Amino acid sequence: MSYRAPTEDIRFVLNELADLENVLALPGFEDVSSDLVDAVLDENAKFVEQAIAPLNQSGDTSPAKWSDGSVSTSPGFKKAFSEFAAGGWQGLQHEQEWGGQGLPKLIGAAVSENMNAANLAFSLCPLLTDGVIEALTAVGTHDQQSRFIPPMLEGRWTGTMNLTEPQAGSDLAQVATRAVKQGDGSYRLSGQKIFITYGEHDMAENIVHLVLARTPDAPRGVKGISLFIVPKFLVGEDGTLGPRNDVWCASLEHKLGIHGSPTAVLLYGSGKGDVGEGAVGYLVGEENRGLEYMFIMMNAARYAVGIQGIAVSERALQHAVAYAHERVQGQALEGSAGPVAISNHPDVQRMLLNMRALTEGGRALAYVAAAACDTARRHTDPAARARSKAVYEYLVPVVKGFSTESSLEVTSLGVQVHGGMGFIEETGAAQYYRDARILPIYEGTTAIQANDFVGRKILRDGGAVAKVLSAEMRALVVQLQQESDKAGRDADGLDLIARRLGAGIEAYDKATSFILANAQSSLRAVFLGSVPYLMLAGTVHAGWQLARAALVCSQKAHADEAAAFYTTKLATSVFYAAHILPRVESLSVSVLEGIVASRYANEAGGK
Amino acid sequence: MSYRAPTEDIRFVLNELADLENVLALPGFEDVSSDLVDAVLDENAKFVEQAIAPLNQSGDTSPAKWSDGSVSTSPGFKKAFSEFAAGGWQGLQHEQEWGGQGLPKLIGAAVSENMNAANLAFSLCPLLTDGVIEALTAVGTHDQQSRFIPPMLEGRWTGTMNLTEPQAGSDLAQVATRAVKQGDGSYRLSGQKIFITYGEHDMAENIVHLVLARTPDAPRGVKGISLFIVPKFLVGEDGTLGPRNDVWCASLEHKLGIHGSPTAVLLYGSGKGDVGEGAVGYLVGEENRGLEYMFIMMNAARYAVGIQGIAVSERALQHAVAYAHERVQGQALEGSAGPVAISNHPDVQRMLLNMRALTEGGRALAYVAAAACDTARRHTDPAARARSKAVYEYLVPVVKGFSTESSLEVTSLGVQVHGGMGFIEETGAAQYYRDARILPIYEGTTAIQANDFVGRKILRDGGAVAKVLSAEMRALVVQLQQESDKAGRDADGLDLIARRLGAGIEAYDKATSFILANAQSSLRAVFLGSVPYLMLAGTVHAGWQLARAALVCSQKAHADEAAAFYTTKLATSVFYAAHILPRVESLSVSVLEGIVASRYANEAGGK
Repeated sequence: MSYRAPTEDIRFVLNELADLENVLALPGFEDVSSDLVDAVLDENAKFVEQAIAPLNQSGDTSPAKWSDGSVSTSPGFKKAFSEFAAGGWQGLQHEQEWGGQGLPKLIGAAVSENMNAANLAFSLCPLLTDGVIEALTAVGTHDQQSRFIPPMLEGRWTGTMNLTEPQAGSDLAQVATRAVKQGDGSYRLSGQKIFITYGEHDMAENIVHLVLARTPDAPRGVKGISLFIVPKFLVGEDGTLGPRNDVWCASLEHKLGIHGSPTAVLLYGSGKGDVGEGAVGYLVGEENRGLEYMFIMMNAARYAVGIQGIAVSERALQHAVAYAHERVQGQALEGSAGPVAISNHPDVQRMLLNMRALTEGGRALAYVAAAACDTARRHTDPAARARSKAVYEYLVPVVKGFSTESSLEVTSLGVQVHGGMGFIEETGAAQYYRDARILPIYEGTTAIQANDFVGRKILRDGGAVAKVLSAEMRALVVQLQQESDKAGRDADGLDLIARRLGAGIEAYDKATSFILANAQSSLRAVFLGSVPYLMLAGTVHAGWQLARAALVCSQKAHADEAAAFYTTKLATSVFYAAHILPRVESLSVSVLEGIVASRYANEAGGK
Repeated sequence: MSYRAPTEDIRFVLNELADLENVLALPGFEDVSSDLVDAVLDENAKFVEQAIAPLNQSGDTSPAKWSDGSVSTSPGFKKAFSEFAAGGWQGLQHEQEWGGQGLPKLIGAAVSENMNAANLAFSLCPLLTDGVIEALTAVGTHDQQSRFIPPMLEGRWTGTMNLTEPQAGSDLAQVATRAVKQGDGSYRLSGQKIFITYGEHDMAENIVHLVLARTPDAPRGVKGISLFIVPKFLVGEDGTLGPRNDVWCASLEHKLGIHGSPTAVLLYGSGKGDVGEGAVGYLVGEENRGLEYMFIMMNAARYAVGIQGIAVSERALQHAVAYAHERVQGQALEGSAGPVAISNHPDVQRMLLNMRALTEGGRALAYVAAAACDTARRHTDPAARARSKAVYEYLVPVVKGFSTESSLEVTSLGVQVHGGMGFIEETGAAQYYRDARILPIYEGTTAIQANDFVGRKILRDGGAVAKVLSAEMRALVVQLQQESDKAGRDADGLDLIARRLGAGIEAYDKATSFILANAQSSLRAVFLGSVPYLMLAGTVHAGWQLARAALVCSQKAHADEAAAFYTTKLATSVFYAAHILPRVESLSVSVLEGIVASRYANEAGGK
């Protein structure tokens, strides 16, 4: 099954919901015209459809292979990566100073979605490299930047994040990898890191590992972690590759999904290689501030994983839609002479619209967040920057949590639409189900997103951002109701959306108030409901964006030449309101019942 | 990770919720004492824990293998099956007339749950054989019964169901396999069947295929389908095996899960074998009534697949609980000197209780349904039989749909509890996630259960059963509220349950009324909401059973020596009320918004 970039919806979201025009008007984007954006999207669609998408299933069946410390990636990956490099895709949203193209994050989000939809396993490599570039751009020295960033932008080198150790998963306080300072100012690292995505491979000349480690006299816990650059090959001042560093891939994991992505166990300081014992590393920023720096790339990576959730959902949706139109089974509900395509059956329509609603709702919300990020970075007015920054930071855990959890539902429905064929691996639907399952786990589980959301994004500002968003959503409900009162053709659909969104906002406000009121006295109650609250926020905010879309579509659905697109979009928005938004109300009940429920839960002691 | 039969909860459900005492008092169970039941459960636990559970992961990694038409099952399966046979487990709930033990379905359900929890892939073989025995018991001739049933009860032979063909999945009207009558009264079959579970294997001497096929002059559609016995080896009058029949395994499917279960493509009438061209088959019952007969085994199999959903959920739960107690990560929420087991974290408690609530809720509902089935078959009072029959038939699609869809959620949470380790295949959690995915598909997808539920179980009797159940649930709410008003120690928990169950019943009643009121005028609206309505019914009924459990537990939780069990059970029930029952209300909204939503959905045409 081939993948086609959903360019029509991407353009709709960019222009109608994420206000591309205003993003392009920000300082620094003077050279980015809307024609250029169109050209980038078209070129990107062509590239991913032709070069990357065809390797998705073969990457699954022929995973990366480890042999004696080396890793050969799946057939075709190396060639595709060189095309990726030649196309300049790695530099898309990075600083022009180091050779990037300096496009808005908003465009980067669209391109990244297409890449990941085409091939999630392949696209993890650039995703991690993006994070390394972002971190070094923010906190590297000029020498570190000039030495390491350009080759990554060119796609000659790639980057990795090294956080996890066997005893330290989500709990970085337990990181034990040691870093000992040498006379020349460099460090020697020793320890073991696990779950390192593209920690070893054959697609690039060098690999830039960013590694969390602890100096001998560092304080305990997360305040004693430092961040180091450890290149696979040392790099001379002129950028030439030097001796092989003492970092080695001991094995690859055998995973449920994303088989094309090599997940490495890395050993630092085992004494092999050309540098003696200990991997040579260079401190980034100051000692003991590693966690803070790592969060720079973590936040970028969290957002990017949210995009992955949308991407794999879109891929699963396309696969299911194609099958539903092709597969002939059963009579039409109204009775007919013979069997019809299953896309005529109400429950297949329900499943497809459920998939589409979550995918397009997630996309709209994520792109709106990206626009806020661009505004936060570049707006001339400091107050506008601060407002957008707060909104973006509020939305990062929401996008990550909501889009990735939704991708589990979407890819599961994708299997279900195929019936028995969905369970057969050759069909392809099962791969998305397997691939998606890592998304709510890596770069911080959904629980960790929820902790971040409740702790840093709600409690810290007393719910200020939540109140702003609530007011904006309420204004939209009024507008929808006014439009519906005009009794035009789609009045009943807009009315349904207005009612369900209104009820959703009520529920959101109540849950937020509960969180704010009880964090002091009943922390367990609040955190028993933190994931439901995160999902609640994602569900109501994505519904908000689809409601905005419905307003636009109701005006165009019966006039425009692209009427089919608007009709489907409007139906998707109505469906979201009827089948997804009501979840907000039940999630809110779960949050509100937290005090009693958490007492019983804790008595049962995690049984 | 080893499996331990959840005997304590099984006994609780049998005795406190499914009224085992009254079931054992039914005619025909005179010889079944409660001591015998205890002994069977203990023996069963020992058998599955020691003989079957250890083969679960190895069956996954070493699937059944096809070679030149023969299939060798996973290492150890053959030996385990001979132990299964020797233990008499296949005969447990079948008629004593043919050598069965004639135990209640209620006990059969518990034994089947344990079998499937221990090893889903292995236990599919007996599950299908059960269906064949049930169908032949009901509609076979005396000669067919005496020839085929005893060897299956003894575990020397196994049985299969042959419905699906490449062009005929859920739509049996399209079955094309031909059956031509011969001079001696037998038939010759030719055609291709797919997705045949244990269609070929090496664990038994013979395989009894029940096959849907069409005689040359049969009417079109489902009214022209007949049912045939096609044994792999023909069987002499004395029961000895004769010539190899013309049915051959062309290949096995490469599946997402249940790798240990060989899923065969079977060719009938390819001309190989010892009988000339065409597989020799024997008509069951009358021509053209095959679908009706097949439904006998389908209904048994649907219930059994519901049990599989509970089984794989229990297995995933045990795995996750063990990990959560062992894995040390992060500080306690209240602050502490060092890292604690993750079972202390509120969100891990939430996930474990969510898993437990769905598993135990599903179990309680399924066992209550089994008791209704026993009563329907054996009660002396015809009115009581009719009542119980209606309740059982109402509950079959609910048990199947709710337990299997829940198993997707439970096994997914099981992966999530493990964090990154959950995505690594060696951990084992991923297998349950893969295995479970077939359950909402085979023996009728969830949509087909929902069609059956709405069409035959709600509309046909004008919601009569639904009204009876609603009244029973309402009476329980009153009882819970009275108990809560006494202001005892668990008053707040019982109050929470009473409130949420009460709200759930409201929502259930409204949705039922909507279905009844709109089936004539807006069939698409009704069927757009049929799966949500099925899930709504499952959610509220399972919540009802856990609420009944809570009443019992609140009296025992602080007194009894087994207090830990009751404390956990009560917490599970409270959690279900706070986090699962509220879904009923949002599902009800989706049903009620069906008229507008379905018009838009249909305009979008399954996009």
